[in-house]
Amino acid sequence: MRVSLISTGEEILRGEVQDTNATHAAALLDLHGFEVVRRHTCGDALADNVSVLLLAMAEADAVLVCGGLGPTVDDRTLDALGAALGLPLLEDPALLADVRRKFEAMGVDMTPNQARQARLPAGGESIPNPRGTAPGVRLARSDGRLVFCLPGPPGEYRPMLEEAVLPALEAERVRRGERAAHGQRVLKVFGKGEGHVAHLLGDLEAAVPGLVLGYRAAVPEIHVKLRSRGPTPAAVAAVLDEAERWVRERLGILVFSADGRSLPEVVLDALVARRLKLAAAESCTGGLLAKLLTDVPGASRAFVLSAVTYANEAKTAVLGVRAELLAAHGAVSEPVARAMAEGARRVSGADLALALTGIAGPDGGTPEKPVGLVHLALAHAGGTEHHRRQFPYRDRDFVRALAAHAALDLVRRHLAR
Amino acid sequence: MRVSLISTGEEILRGEVQDTNATHAAALLDLHGFEVVRRHTCGDALADNVSVLLLAMAEADAVLVCGGLGPTVDDRTLDALGAALGLPLLEDPALLADVRRKFEAMGVDMTPNQARQARLPAGGESIPNPRGTAPGVRLARSDGRLVFCLPGPPGEYRPMLEEAVLPALEAERVRRGERAAHGQRVLKVFGKGEGHVAHLLGDLEAAVPGLVLGYRAAVPEIHVKLRSRGPTPAAVAAVLDEAERWVRERLGILVFSADGRSLPEVVLDALVARRLKLAAAESCTGGLLAKLLTDVPGASRAFVLSAVTYANEAKTAVLGVRAELLAAHGAVSEPVARAMAEGARRVSGADLALALTGIAGPDGGTPEKPVGLVHLALAHAGGTEHHRRQFPYRDRDFVRALAAHAALDLVRRHLAR
Repeated sequence: MRVSLISTGEEILRGEVQDTNATHAAALLDLHGFEVVRRHTCGDALADNVSVLLLAMAEADAVLVCGGLGPTVDDRTLDALGAALGLPLLEDPALLADVRRKFEAMGVDMTPNQARQARLPAGGESIPNPRGTAPGVRLARSDGRLVFCLPGPPGEYRPMLEEAVLPALEAERVRRGERAAHGQRVLKVFGKGEGHVAHLLGDLEAAVPGLVLGYRAAVPEIHVKLRSRGPTPAAVAAVLDEAERWVRERLGILVFSADGRSLPEVVLDALVARRLKLAAAESCTGGLLAKLLTDVPGASRAFVLSAVTYANEAKTAVLGVRAELLAAHGAVSEPVARAMAEGARRVSGADLALALTGIAGPDGGTPEKPVGLVHLALAHAGGTEHHRRQFPYRDRDFVRALAAHAALDLVRRHLAR
Repeated sequence: MRVSLISTGEEILRGEVQDTNATHAAALLDLHGFEVVRRHTCGDALADNVSVLLLAMAEADAVLVCGGLGPTVDDRTLDALGAALGLPLLEDPALLADVRRKFEAMGVDMTPNQARQARLPAGGESIPNPRGTAPGVRLARSDGRLVFCLPGPPGEYRPMLEEAVLPALEAERVRRGERAAHGQRVLKVFGKGEGHVAHLLGDLEAAVPGLVLGYRAAVPEIHVKLRSRGPTPAAVAAVLDEAERWVRERLGILVFSADGRSLPEVVLDALVARRLKLAAAESCTGGLLAKLLTDVPGASRAFVLSAVTYANEAKTAVLGVRAELLAAHGAVSEPVARAMAEGARRVSGADLALALTGIAGPDGGTPEKPVGLVHLALAHAGGTEHHRRQFPYRDRDFVRALAAHAALDLVRRHLAR
């Protein structure tokens, strides 16, 4: 089934906000085997909305409109739908009562314009919106084509897409006899570039019939996307299982996740499973490593401390890195990285401690210590390991992201031994 | 002048990557007073590219196409342009030599398909691309309408947009006699919500004729956008000056930047100007405060340490927070926030030290200490100030962002005294 997406609203059209809803919807529809054929973005003008709707309805089996369902006069999606299809808009008493209830629950007076949200085009059905006031609208045309209109706030749009639109599209696909099972599995990989990974997996599609292989560079991770369509879910799962086995055989430890978890989540889960605590000492990453770990709710189960020692004096005062060591080797050096890791482990009492010291750029590089150079150390009960890494410089964020992920990966590999 | 944007490429259409180029271009064009009338997204199929081009050329004075200029057979923008306008594609010897030179400079053999990048539609001109191999294309139609095609990588697209497309649009506007001066100034505000700020500025447009006022919630900042169009640049500047004076009078210390600088940049610059050093002790923000500061190149001029003490033991070991204090009041409390700030100041030797301890959620809240509660402290030579803040909970990131910015704002206000 062919689907077209419409994003409506001046703030989207003019680039005031990024249109993440359309990207999200397109990826989700694609994942579920629907063909996204076109995306349109228009402003609030009624004539533009009508012409985009007519265009989209002509090119696709289903049209999904985002935005323009609110209470103000520049919310014109329903007016456009009525005009495009020659349908009157009717105020629905049950919807109106529902909108009124929501305002009562918020303790806010309902102004007359809020009643716009209780309108339906003749023949349309409302889609419940438990997270906001404007309901969605679903309309099935006599030729079987479908139109869905959803409100624009992502916190309302996304659940309504999953709860109402996807099942309705799925049902229509079954009705059309187009049903085919489909599935996707994403193996997340860290430690080699996309070109290297693609080289290692070059003959995968030939080896596993029915598999479609894709890559996504989710810097600094590589996502290997395994997809298949087949007559039954079991047939699809068999293809994906075979492909995953094959990929794991080729990539081994490079694969860190096949269940959607991020690298910080994988590391934290592995630490918790072994009842180990982690500390860190950061210089060039400036707190990014700690942020990545504490982005995960419940990180405190395993993460105890990161000493973001940006100044040399702080390395000495907090981590006990000797001033002579800093003077002799410089802050970006193997001895200092080792001393930072050991200091963080000692001061925190953690089982494992990471240290990062490097040159994130854009300034501060020298011929001996160029921008992108990072010394990593991991102190543990068995000693301290050190790794010298020269990351390519794209920008400051890039070097910092690579360094923080490389540090997490050291812990992952250490725990996998 | 009316401009339509086309984004081409399966990876964009299917939502594999966010279309940041179109958002960027739309915002830039809007800022320069061009009217973005429609945005289109299509895949790689030639027929789709042709139909979208025809549509866009019919609705706008200028069309800007992003993507599809590379060397592979699924790069079809020029083929589509030729087909849509009935123009032959010609290989340009100078362009071909240029592409060949770029491959030689990279030390890479040039495969025959790379020559596709040296094609031009009859009557078209190339737009230089010093950052990549595929040049852009500019075509002026006999009726004065313009078509621009730029390569998709953002690092090539964006500079070419600014260096070639904007000046050409500007020149065409002058040629049409549509020239009018325009300008924008953004005042960045922190400390009150958008509704409150809008209330304070409610009569600004009435007070300053010629001004267009806009808001953007760049969470947790509010951006007040002052815009004007007029007969001359001086007239526009006078309106913006008057409006800025008016806004500063109403909002006072809430305004932290009128020159594009971020809150961390403003704080770091103020510290450097006073030769002061800053340290921090973070709990709930988990390194975010340090990351925001070290996102700024040269942060080491003023930022020395953040102790991300996620576990209570780390607060004691690194910051000297007494265990009895933690036991008596809990980690999220005024006494602990004060002790953390004073400990960070003592251990780092910095002039100022911030501390944050709170409950970022989603779990960990209690009736007495709900999710979103954050204790902030700022230790300085004159003593230690404390602020108890209850932030609304939207998600974990939201609370952490509000808390980190509130902490930076404490420093800004302290230095402004």
